[in-house]
Amino acid sequence: MKFNVVQKVMKVNDELAAHNRTRLVEADVIAINMMSAPGSGKTSLIEAAAERLKGRLALGVVEGDPETTLDAERISRCDVPVVQVQTAGGCHLEANLVGQALDHLPLQELELVIIENVGNLVCPVEFDLGETVRVAVVSTPEGHDKPAKYPKLFRKADLIVLNKIDLLPYLEFDIARFLDYLGRLNPEFTLIQTSCATGEGIAQWTDWLWDTASVPAIP
Amino acid sequence: MKFNVVQKVMKVNDELAAHNRTRLVEADVIAINMMSAPGSGKTSLIEAAAERLKGRLALGVVEGDPETTLDAERISRCDVPVVQVQTAGGCHLEANLVGQALDHLPLQELELVIIENVGNLVCPVEFDLGETVRVAVVSTPEGHDKPAKYPKLFRKADLIVLNKIDLLPYLEFDIARFLDYLGRLNPEFTLIQTSCATGEGIAQWTDWLWDTASVPAIP
Repeated sequence: MKFNVVQKVMKVNDELAAHNRTRLVEADVIAINMMSAPGSGKTSLIEAAAERLKGRLALGVVEGDPETTLDAERISRCDVPVVQVQTAGGCHLEANLVGQALDHLPLQELELVIIENVGNLVCPVEFDLGETVRVAVVSTPEGHDKPAKYPKLFRKADLIVLNKIDLLPYLEFDIARFLDYLGRLNPEFTLIQTSCATGEGIAQWTDWLWDTASVPAIP
Repeated sequence: MKFNVVQKVMKVNDELAAHNRTRLVEADVIAINMMSAPGSGKTSLIEAAAERLKGRLALGVVEGDPETTLDAERISRCDVPVVQVQTAGGCHLEANLVGQALDHLPLQELELVIIENVGNLVCPVEFDLGETVRVAVVSTPEGHDKPAKYPKLFRKADLIVLNKIDLLPYLEFDIARFLDYLGRLNPEFTLIQTSCATGEGIAQWTDWLWDTASVPAIP
């Protein structure tokens, strides 16, 4: 019985996601659903992108969070339009909430919207938000086994960002095993290695955003 | 309608949790529900405890994981009875699954059971498993804002473990703000700071387990 009800809710979510997708395509906006565990550095990566893309690409941000407005406060300081979605303890964003957030963004003036999902490696991947592409972020302190443990997220990701690589000298993170796990899930994965502390890889990350946003939306 | 169904499932879970609790009390076993984000070091902390408590305290472990048996393999190498619960992508343990796991542990011979929940800061806290106490683990790379963002978990925790403190020199982790967030949620929180890499705080962690297990179960 539980299963049936989940199906039903997912169907509603899928319809609302399709509606979001239509709105985004009509406004010629690429949307990125960014997913990771709590504290892997999604907000810092968005801050870095906002800084480098300023004046080059019209960026908007949707911040998902169970309770606070801490992340939206950080992004708003980058002079980027941002909407905070509070899930009231909920463990993922849903298309309904993202649709409401899009109402508060100047979509006609934007080229790229980054949706920062709630920090969670399990639930967000089940919910289509109407995004164009999906980014999975994993940080080195979380360990090299994360793709094996959370395969759905990594299998579905158009880009995988390995963040906090400045910490590698202090960790037992086996990058060969990490790459092996990723390759088994998707032999054609795209990986960018970054550190918001040293700036390493940030140019690649923003170039990827630039290239992704420059792809014309398919009507 | 979704809300009503969630209520109903929770009621079933609560009944099964009460059943688990009765079984544990009758067997004079203390059970710990250990919760954290993915990769914060729960399994390493259990390994360290198993090592130090060997011959002193009869420990059993229940390992929750969305997909793999990697963690149970690690714990079984410590010569401790362990059961792997695979949630098939599910984002938390439920009392039903833990009850099935307890069937496979030699409860009459054990004094302490550590239940390692699925790596997730949101969902597990909503589900009573029948545990005696709750431990929240957070690692320094996740950032000092985690108690503010995930208040339910930290408010309900009987012990908070701040792990990976060996990485503090390389991070912008503001411990004063971390403590301030914790204090606002629960002025009487108990915190132990640990590093499985250097061994710092591991004696305190195992002493806490020892003290907790030595408290007679209330019938």
